Amino acid sequence: MSGLDQVVVADTCLSEIEGEKGQLSLRGYPIGRLAEEHIFEENLYFLLTGRYPTIEEIGNVSQQLIAAMQLDEEYLTFLETVPLHLDAISYLMVALSAINRQKFTWPPTRDQALHLQGTVLAILGQRQSRLEARPLTAPDAQLNFAGNFLYMIFGQRPTEDETKALDCYFTLTMEHGLNASSFTSRVITSTESDLISAIVGAMGALKGPLHGGAPSEVIKMLEEIGRKENIDTWLKERLENKEKVMGFGHRVYRTKDPRALMLKKVVKSFNREEGWLQLALALEEKAERALKAYKPNHSLKTNVEFYAAALFKTIGLPQDLYTATFATSRLAGWCAHALEQAENNRIIRPMSRYIGPKYE
Amino acid sequence: MSGLDQVVVADTCLSEIEGEKGQLSLRGYPIGRLAEEHIFEENLYFLLTGRYPTIEEIGNVSQQLIAAMQLDEEYLTFLETVPLHLDAISYLMVALSAINRQKFTWPPTRDQALHLQGTVLAILGQRQSRLEARPLTAPDAQLNFAGNFLYMIFGQRPTEDETKALDCYFTLTMEHGLNASSFTSRVITSTESDLISAIVGAMGALKGPLHGGAPSEVIKMLEEIGRKENIDTWLKERLENKEKVMGFGHRVYRTKDPRALMLKKVVKSFNREEGWLQLALALEEKAERALKAYKPNHSLKTNVEFYAAALFKTIGLPQDLYTATFATSRLAGWCAHALEQAENNRIIRPMSRYIGPKYE
Repeated sequence: MSGLDQVVVADTCLSEIEGEKGQLSLRGYPIGRLAEEHIFEENLYFLLTGRYPTIEEIGNVSQQLIAAMQLDEEYLTFLETVPLHLDAISYLMVALSAINRQKFTWPPTRDQALHLQGTVLAILGQRQSRLEARPLTAPDAQLNFAGNFLYMIFGQRPTEDETKALDCYFTLTMEHGLNASSFTSRVITSTESDLISAIVGAMGALKGPLHGGAPSEVIKMLEEIGRKENIDTWLKERLENKEKVMGFGHRVYRTKDPRALMLKKVVKSFNREEGWLQLALALEEKAERALKAYKPNHSLKTNVEFYAAALFKTIGLPQDLYTATFATSRLAGWCAHALEQAENNRIIRPMSRYIGPKYE
Repeated sequence: MSGLDQVVVADTCLSEIEGEKGQLSLRGYPIGRLAEEHIFEENLYFLLTGRYPTIEEIGNVSQQLIAAMQLDEEYLTFLETVPLHLDAISYLMVALSAINRQKFTWPPTRDQALHLQGTVLAILGQRQSRLEARPLTAPDAQLNFAGNFLYMIFGQRPTEDETKALDCYFTLTMEHGLNASSFTSRVITSTESDLISAIVGAMGALKGPLHGGAPSEVIKMLEEIGRKENIDTWLKERLENKEKVMGFGHRVYRTKDPRALMLKKVVKSFNREEGWLQLALALEEKAERALKAYKPNHSLKTNVEFYAAALFKTIGLPQDLYTATFATSRLAGWCAHALEQAENNRIIRPMSRYIGPKYE
């Protein structure tokens, strides 16, 4: 399988990645500007529709999201039975597949996307409350999407800097071209299947460690290092054994990952003494220097996963929710790709070349 | 989106489609020969491994399949709660996603595939028994895979000709190149995700009416015609209104669909007077003649869906199981593609071209 790395399979108005320049733009705007000037639900609306909502519209969007976070009784009864041995992504795959498909008729719509966006958040909250054997937390219309995510996951009101940081993370990671999961969303949508099928398939792709697994790997590494004093020894050994330093380097970005830059800024402004954050900052500095000496021709700078991991660890997010948190933001991109595919659809079925034996 | 119709994205040893010649071969053998000389589970093993099982091996395969058809108590308790408003494919997506993923570690294996093959059959049987409010039928080790499918769906022992016909259908439709669902299986597998995720995603793609919906359309048409005497009038009206005649023509096959030829043979040998079958045979004859006169440059012959529909209707399969029955056979191809992808894996993430506005 070729990987299709250099094959253009779609025209898109969603995102543009300029690796050499270290730029990512969504619908023509630099990602950093989106993250700085708007909250996630505004950017979600922008990504789905191509324009920012009016004040009235954003009120409606927020209402739709909050409404979707309130799961109905029948559905909640079903969710009570979903096996807890499942990882969070598999749990989401079960839960989403069980949604009544009547409302998800072809073609996929903005309203369907908003409904799923709120529902995914609520399912993760429901799962976490079951795991911790505490009552389900209802969404709070005073909180934005990121705030409700933290509120429903943790069962207590988040601080402002936590909400702001997660909101920024959500915008930064909502869309990034035709990665394997977004491509899956388009292939499934191309059969005129429903949006739920497209999203469940995309989650199946994100579940793969080559795709959605990176932040967890960074944490393992930070935990292995443990404290600042160990960085030098750890780095030396790692590089001498020709092992990868997780969270550094990106397939596309030759300079810094623009999302990492922005997320670092937000995480650094955290109003607390946080060991993990200091460790991450120190590791970044030392590892970038060491990597430059070790591989002078490669530009190995921190990527977005590195700071996502630092952020998740800092806000105390359970590690088995890392990929699911990524799925919550990337859901926006999956839905936007599904809507764009449906607008000008053609079924996606490529060719294969037979190279096996022939008999008659 | 280009559809990638002419783009070769993978080398494969699984199937070769020669449209001009009207030939489909699996691992080098013509599909008709496979269907005539072997039962489905033998062909399944052949597709997965590249060789036919020995007598001892096929005994083990059958045992594995029968074992997988016996769902454990905990899982059955969960299945009792899956909403019955779901169509059969969505029901399968919920049920499969909920399987304990511990057994489905990377890379996907033949044993995992066999396990899913038996499990899918059993889930469909479980769903049908719930819908009809009767006890679950246990698999019977004396019956082959097709026989157990009919036994567990209908709750009564199938006749020999029914079993033989369905067995033939299963082999004929198990694999057919990189259609949208098989491609989905490969894209998801390429992230090193688990086989269940790949299969659930493939089912989401098959669910789309552009992919898995054809046999149901044929039945609607046969029911609309009702009886032989109405064929001429119906055909004339249909063609004059430039409407499609369902079950005729195939994107790839320029002569007859080789699977239709074989399935017709089997269905014709049915030892019964069957109105639907006679209607289908008469319609085929008249429609092929009319289509030839109407579109002399096109070769519009019956495709496999046409006879699949006639078969399903004849054996009394509930219409909401048509796509799921197709999924049961195509599962073999999805698994084979996942195994082949994993053998020589590279993550599949193509490029897109940004064509939207730019700011900043």
